[in-house]
Amino acid sequence: MSARHFLNSDLIGRLGGRGLLATPALVVDLRAFERNVEAMQAHCERAGLKLRAHAKTHKSVTIARRQIAAGAVGVCCAKLGEAETLAEGEIEGLLVTSPVVTRHGFARIAKLNGQLADFMIVADSAVCVDGYAGAGVASGKRLKVLVDVDIGLHRTGIRPGAPALELAQRIVASPHLQFMGLQGYAGQLQHVPEFTDRRTQSLAALKLLGETRDLLMANGIACPIVSGGGTGTYSIDAEAQVFTELQAGSYIFMDKQYCEVKIANAAPLPFECALFVQTTVISANMPGLVTTDAGLKSFATEAGSPVIHSGAPEGANYFFFGDEQGGIMGAPGMKLGDVVACTAPHCDPTVNLYDVYHVVDGDRLIEIWPIEGRGRSA
Amino acid sequence: MSARHFLNSDLIGRLGGRGLLATPALVVDLRAFERNVEAMQAHCERAGLKLRAHAKTHKSVTIARRQIAAGAVGVCCAKLGEAETLAEGEIEGLLVTSPVVTRHGFARIAKLNGQLADFMIVADSAVCVDGYAGAGVASGKRLKVLVDVDIGLHRTGIRPGAPALELAQRIVASPHLQFMGLQGYAGQLQHVPEFTDRRTQSLAALKLLGETRDLLMANGIACPIVSGGGTGTYSIDAEAQVFTELQAGSYIFMDKQYCEVKIANAAPLPFECALFVQTTVISANMPGLVTTDAGLKSFATEAGSPVIHSGAPEGANYFFFGDEQGGIMGAPGMKLGDVVACTAPHCDPTVNLYDVYHVVDGDRLIEIWPIEGRGRSA
Repeated sequence: MSARHFLNSDLIGRLGGRGLLATPALVVDLRAFERNVEAMQAHCERAGLKLRAHAKTHKSVTIARRQIAAGAVGVCCAKLGEAETLAEGEIEGLLVTSPVVTRHGFARIAKLNGQLADFMIVADSAVCVDGYAGAGVASGKRLKVLVDVDIGLHRTGIRPGAPALELAQRIVASPHLQFMGLQGYAGQLQHVPEFTDRRTQSLAALKLLGETRDLLMANGIACPIVSGGGTGTYSIDAEAQVFTELQAGSYIFMDKQYCEVKIANAAPLPFECALFVQTTVISANMPGLVTTDAGLKSFATEAGSPVIHSGAPEGANYFFFGDEQGGIMGAPGMKLGDVVACTAPHCDPTVNLYDVYHVVDGDRLIEIWPIEGRGRSA
Repeated sequence: MSARHFLNSDLIGRLGGRGLLATPALVVDLRAFERNVEAMQAHCERAGLKLRAHAKTHKSVTIARRQIAAGAVGVCCAKLGEAETLAEGEIEGLLVTSPVVTRHGFARIAKLNGQLADFMIVADSAVCVDGYAGAGVASGKRLKVLVDVDIGLHRTGIRPGAPALELAQRIVASPHLQFMGLQGYAGQLQHVPEFTDRRTQSLAALKLLGETRDLLMANGIACPIVSGGGTGTYSIDAEAQVFTELQAGSYIFMDKQYCEVKIANAAPLPFECALFVQTTVISANMPGLVTTDAGLKSFATEAGSPVIHSGAPEGANYFFFGDEQGGIMGAPGMKLGDVVACTAPHCDPTVNLYDVYHVVDGDRLIEIWPIEGRGRSA
């Protein structure tokens, strides 16, 4: 399709191919990625949880297939655009984790519900529920809906307890909808650095979700699904005994932020950095400074500077040097053409900048996986 | 191609269509954009400068065509991928403003040079020059090269004076290259808020470029092109009498950062905000807070929060609420489905997140322009 992709795909299978990529390039360490997929699946199985991994991290049909092949019951999508992309890739078990309130959105939901056997979406208002009922009518079959419960993030979700019950009753009352249970996501707690703090706060948040589930059950409404959780709280999410399934996403790649999160005994999360932005030194005229080809357009920037993983001396620091370039300070001896791999500050929005993953095993380029859902935020 | 685009393109020509867009959507105010294109072209003509507008801002064949139709001599590209995209769109007058040092890059340059009548690229090292000479050989015709001079940004560019002269001589000595002149970009000065400071510092930086041009001329090397400048220094760039052509890019759209830049008498830059991210309220369960569908994946974030342009009460504030959502505080009365337009904090990397521009005239959706160069940072 483009000269860039043509050039990079020419390198597939070649030892040393990774070092020759046109850059900036998004690189996945295949073995680390596979170990992450297996580790989270094994954790869920030990804990008696299902895994519905969040595809907003990777936006990739190939990766969704691999997660499902490893045992996941499906994947979550943040937006309808992502769900449409994965549906085109014949991925089943899709749950859209954000509420939709527009007429156009309801029409798209009807199409997805008609197309897929087990499409699900969350609601956090009567506007959602009434629109979803219309989508159920339009698709000719019941639409499966979870109530999104706000357990402290205050971003989406209805208040726990009576308001959630009332919304669930509205869903149950519709002949065009099928009530499937609850969603609760404590996004505010995923990066709390100290494990005991994160555990205490998470268990308190999940208690609200459990009490809401119990309230529904006391009112005759079963919750076959309670979905939520994330990479930062994955072990606590299991301990709380509230969820039936985990929505973790970032564990497949990790990033600077998640690498700073600790679990019990100050150990790091048991997932490896598997995602890198590879960049090349293109200018080296200033003593103590070299300039690379990856800047503000090649990383999500809200979580600070990239961390150099390989290709530069110990102690070297990467900084954003405008839209198109990066700078490396404290790197004596670096020269034009040197190749550097950086860990992204934040994986999900960094992935969203690229069209493809370059999948490597050591220095060999193995495959190129398209990121079909890139930019599908609408 | 996708359901999202299909839905939005269905709205073309419809009054009120803008308000119905699937969001987040990137929106261009056509009349403001056209006035910006005309204003910068008129400025250049008054100043006796050519305009080679920087396409790294827009990455769009349609916009490059409009700039050239208005009088620009061509457009600049930050990366080879952008140049390849615009070359496919038959845009002439391309100048690549970043040095290239890789073997793969030289092969791509050879292809562009063979394909285009007047392709140009900058060099700031002997590695570039020698590689470019090889590309000239491979393309069967001389490759046009400018020396990139570092006038204080220290990002790319060779030092002014003797080092620049030596590099120019290396280009002149190659039978496969054609020396075209100099480039100098004072990126560090574009956003200096106080006009007199910006003017003093810019004139000092451009003096280095003028002296280097004079040194080359004294050594028998003519500089038919001296290219550089930007939106923040556009009037000073003319005053300095060093440039033959201006590389401004952001003037077509403006953004939060450039709207804070002042010219003489504390007046704003004479360009209008013409680019917006449109978003929809999707959740409203908390008093004093609503949640929208545009978060970290829908804006470049390194320049702070988006500024609300329309759709929310005076005094409302937009904040990033994770990857997929935004929040608006201080907006009593806002409700589900409300549509808000925000000015991007930084236009270029925000554009790089979207596949299309939704071009509006008031409330009517007029056209959808593809962003062919989105993500082409390699």
